[in-house]
Amino acid sequence: MKESFRTTRRVEFGDTDMAGIAHFANFFRYMEQAETDLLHTFGISVSWKDGEERLGFPRVSVSCDYKSPARFEDMLDIAVTVEDVGRKSVRYRFDFTREGKEIAIGHITAVYCRHTPERGLESREIPPALRAMLELA
Amino acid sequence: MKESFRTTRRVEFGDTDMAGIAHFANFFRYMEQAETDLLHTFGISVSWKDGEERLGFPRVSVSCDYKSPARFEDMLDIAVTVEDVGRKSVRYRFDFTREGKEIAIGHITAVYCRHTPERGLESREIPPALRAMLELA
Amino acid sequence: MKESFRTTRRVEFGDTDMAGIAHFANFFRYMEQAETDLLHTFGISVSWKDGEERLGFPRVSVSCDYKSPARFEDMLDIAVTVEDVGRKSVRYRFDFTREGKEIAIGHITAVYCRHTPERGLESREIPPALRAMLELA
Amino acid sequence: MKESFRTTRRVEFGDTDMAGIAHFANFFRYMEQAETDLLHTFGISVSWKDGEERLGFPRVSVSCDYKSPARFEDMLDIAVTVEDVGRKSVRYRFDFTREGKEIAIGHITAVYCRHTPERGLESREIPPALRAMLELA
Repeated sequence: MKESFRTTRRVEFGDTDMAGIAHFANFFRYMEQAETDLLHTFGISVSWKDGEERLGFPRVSVSCDYKSPARFEDMLDIAVTVEDVGRKSVRYRFDFTREGKEIAIGHITAVYCRHTPERGLESREIPPALRAMLELA
Repeated sequence: MKESFRTTRRVEFGDTDMAGIAHFANFFRYMEQAETDLLHTFGISVSWKDGEERLGFPRVSVSCDYKSPARFEDMLDIAVTVEDVGRKSVRYRFDFTREGKEIAIGHITAVYCRHTPERGLESREIPPALRAMLELA
Repeated sequence: MKESFRTTRRVEFGDTDMAGIAHFANFFRYMEQAETDLLHTFGISVSWKDGEERLGFPRVSVSCDYKSPARFEDMLDIAVTVEDVGRKSVRYRFDFTREGKEIAIGHITAVYCRHTPERGLESREIPPALRAMLELA
Repeated sequence: MKESFRTTRRVEFGDTDMAGIAHFANFFRYMEQAETDLLHTFGISVSWKDGEERLGFPRVSVSCDYKSPARFEDMLDIAVTVEDVGRKSVRYRFDFTREGKEIAIGHITAVYCRHTPERGLESREIPPALRAMLELA
């Protein structure tokens, strides 16, 4: 069975809220950064230019289930799993843990799109080379 | 059929990202503020003090489906529906529209909790008066 | 003596940090929104398009002095004063109060710029009509 | 002459705005994280507990001058210099560069405070051991 891609994230002071924990919305920033880190290993990103076109992965559906709070200075381990690669979309799962303890489980479904000044945002089929990398991740 | 609670939110410059649209994570801030606005109509909030206890609604599960981008200065209409009131939890649905066009649909499930210095965070049954207000919302 | 432009801002839950107060960096978001509100009264914004050009006011210098903490649900009054209009730049002062109590004093100096695909970002002289509005604000 | 403490920060997608650059307010988050990294080298943080007391460094004055935009995925070098250690306060300077190019210069003045449930927030003299570390930084 393939291994998940792994990265880490430290909770910053500005990420916390008055309940003393990382504000729930920040987990989506953490997910996006973990996704960016994974895409970097393929030599791409969540948004990049190819000549006149801008290519990227806008989000269509995201979710997060919170299991245990994360606090200031906690070092979170994030395992990124590519759960599904569709014709135009990719679905990621993010498992957040701290020293083995489950913190949160998130999902992002993103659609491969190009953006041109003339036609705006259009979804596109994921090119075979990128698909192959995502399927192996 | 009961009416949803309605509020509005203008997309700020700092909410946008380099794709020129409201960054997806900000919709969770918008939902939380809309929830706060609803709870205000009951005279409570997402977090408040009752003597030594702090009471509130930490989130256990959240999601958002994005239908169409929101841009700087867009005025978003947000309809908040209480979809379910459990013994200890409440589930909200948020319908974001702009001039009638569907922008996003979000959900937050929050658990009624008290927090004391001695015992930390504990989930509690939603008191009858609060339950009655949520069920009517 | 001319009156300052006035607007308001409520501190949201997601604006707070674990110290229980509005995180200091958020005051710059509040200032930017207050500036946007002021520019709206002139029919412009902090960034807008004029044909092929994008015009706007990138920031070159900002500051904030904190006098007293702001907390969740505080309604802040913000008075915006145009302190100086230079050839290409404008300097705003923001006075934050809550029920008359001084909370913070901020400044933003922004430079009038146009952005074109060919030449990138270039500072420009503030056009006379816009200058006249800023000097009257 | 003493060396500045140095750390790095990568600009994330969620840090950018529709102008395609890191939103100016985020530089204050970057400064706070750099300050936290420096305080870590002393074994403390921007906020920590000592028995019943919470100790920390709330901000009283901050500023930033922007020299050149930072973009998505830019790796910023941040040099932190302790410019002044007063009786109760400390003033930091942050020099942001990217591959040697000047991006921004920021300042934070923070006051050493303790917070107790009974008395709230009170400024305190910086203890000698902490002062010695700050003066050497």
